[in-house]
Amino acid sequence: MSAAARPPGIADIEDAAGRLIGATIVTPLLESPELNARLGGRLLVKAECLQRTGSFKLRGAFNRLALLLPEERKRGVVAYSSGNHAQGVAAAAKRLGLRATIVMPRDAPAVKIANTEAYGAKVVFYDRHREAREVIAAAIVKKTGATLVPPFDDPAIVAGQGTCGLEIAAQAGAMGARLDTVVVPASGGGLASGIGIALADRSPRTKVIVAEPRGLDDLTRSLRTGRRQRNQADARSICDALMVRTPGRLTLAILRKLRARGVAVPDADTLMAMAMAFSAFHIVVEPGGAVALAAVLAGKVRIAGKCVAVVCSGGNVDPATYHDALYRLPVP
Amino acid sequence: MSAAARPPGIADIEDAAGRLIGATIVTPLLESPELNARLGGRLLVKAECLQRTGSFKLRGAFNRLALLLPEERKRGVVAYSSGNHAQGVAAAAKRLGLRATIVMPRDAPAVKIANTEAYGAKVVFYDRHREAREVIAAAIVKKTGATLVPPFDDPAIVAGQGTCGLEIAAQAGAMGARLDTVVVPASGGGLASGIGIALADRSPRTKVIVAEPRGLDDLTRSLRTGRRQRNQADARSICDALMVRTPGRLTLAILRKLRARGVAVPDADTLMAMAMAFSAFHIVVEPGGAVALAAVLAGKVRIAGKCVAVVCSGGNVDPATYHDALYRLPVP
Repeated sequence: MSAAARPPGIADIEDAAGRLIGATIVTPLLESPELNARLGGRLLVKAECLQRTGSFKLRGAFNRLALLLPEERKRGVVAYSSGNHAQGVAAAAKRLGLRATIVMPRDAPAVKIANTEAYGAKVVFYDRHREAREVIAAAIVKKTGATLVPPFDDPAIVAGQGTCGLEIAAQAGAMGARLDTVVVPASGGGLASGIGIALADRSPRTKVIVAEPRGLDDLTRSLRTGRRQRNQADARSICDALMVRTPGRLTLAILRKLRARGVAVPDADTLMAMAMAFSAFHIVVEPGGAVALAAVLAGKVRIAGKCVAVVCSGGNVDPATYHDALYRLPVP
Repeated sequence: MSAAARPPGIADIEDAAGRLIGATIVTPLLESPELNARLGGRLLVKAECLQRTGSFKLRGAFNRLALLLPEERKRGVVAYSSGNHAQGVAAAAKRLGLRATIVMPRDAPAVKIANTEAYGAKVVFYDRHREAREVIAAAIVKKTGATLVPPFDDPAIVAGQGTCGLEIAAQAGAMGARLDTVVVPASGGGLASGIGIALADRSPRTKVIVAEPRGLDDLTRSLRTGRRQRNQADARSICDALMVRTPGRLTLAILRKLRARGVAVPDADTLMAMAMAFSAFHIVVEPGGAVALAAVLAGKVRIAGKCVAVVCSGGNVDPATYHDALYRLPVP
């Protein structure tokens, strides 16, 4: 994005919601009375893993692509992504009849690569530890004239993700819930900033908390210090969807203005949360999608006496990783 | 039920839907454009595994309990169930403030037993192969004056399950889909008959097909022959939720009138369908909940050129069984 990009307002998110009708689904806000009783509070789970393409990323990608000018549409789009944005852009491009090229790390989950190709996108691989995906994408843009669809730091992407926040507010209201807190998995911060803007309008007393994997908590540290922090280049986590090294400028500015704070979640807690999503909610959540739920279940976000919504933001997980999570289930 | 029980009408199902507001959720109707492309038709998946208590059974149980007279409420309720009806009755009783005793087989999935107890119900165990659960439940009724809540063969139960059909019709309509066929997992036939009555009103051209495990296809054979057939006492399947030995009188009469037919599904196909639900829809489906999806994916129900809805009716599965299913996934 350009340094001058302005954050989207609630009207931009409402416009995005209109564009997304038919392209995305309204994912359910789930609740388990038994788990609530154990937690001593009310936990609402936004099952965004049930979204088409298996993650929230379709919201922002479709909104961005729907706003392309006619001459831009002809030249197609390019994106780089470890997998969920890839699928979101590929699916949105297919629905709108555009060509898409996706730059993906060679070690992305096989299921994400296969799905991106199934949407008809051309996949170009790179080595996550030796090459810069931004450079590869820029070369494709230069050669083809295609439009780069950034993963998060763009007002139209943030507005698209914000539609998830509109749904949470409406669904919580219909359930008679007054949200104290919303916890959102974060890497670049696009989903959290979009949801934050939506809730600032619809539910202004709701606090926004971002959840990140431990060791990849650049956004958490950036919110605490007021400056963009970077992760170590060699930082590892099972959360393949949350590997961005530094927050977006736009998204960080939005989240600072919203007084958001962050929490860092160890992978062991994330695996346990995936297992709880299996047994209590019957949804398949990938590691990066489970960090917000993990933050609540592991006691990093207070829920006793409160009403907390968590976003389970994606479900694209390989069986082997899922198996690791389920075998952390306590014997009932 | 008494032999004179009359089938519920559409008004009974609409009344049930009113009673269920707040007690059950509207589960989503999911779709995967990529899977549709592979199947050459349109597949809509009613994710009833996301229902509270992890199965559709809460719908019928809550409707039945909400219709108890004040003096019946005081004496509580009794039910027998391999697990999902148990959880449905226990959760409905808890919400309505009634005492519940549930007769469960000792070899029911641990997660189903644990959840039933977590709802505050008293669980009484029996040996599935040596004792008759009906006899044990009748003794409790005689001793306590509690009301027996039958698992399927009851007009109020059928009406409650029928609310799932109202949702399918409304959701398919909103998606611009004209349903050719609905496929429903069946054991006693309560869900299928309720859905059938709802769709006969809302979508009269939709055909109803029941799916059963191979070897436990008593309803399929009963529909074919016009007489109630029984399964072998030693019949086995991974579909623990679908172990009823013979269809209900009421449910069979309803399904015959609706000209429903049945298909029998081998367990191997069911495991493959559970894996497909994991990878394409990110929902956790138990074996008995996956037989309708399996019938379509294995080619037993025609989908090419058609629009077919399948109900994934439950998600209460132990990790070990789930692991068996996922490791049937083809490498992507």
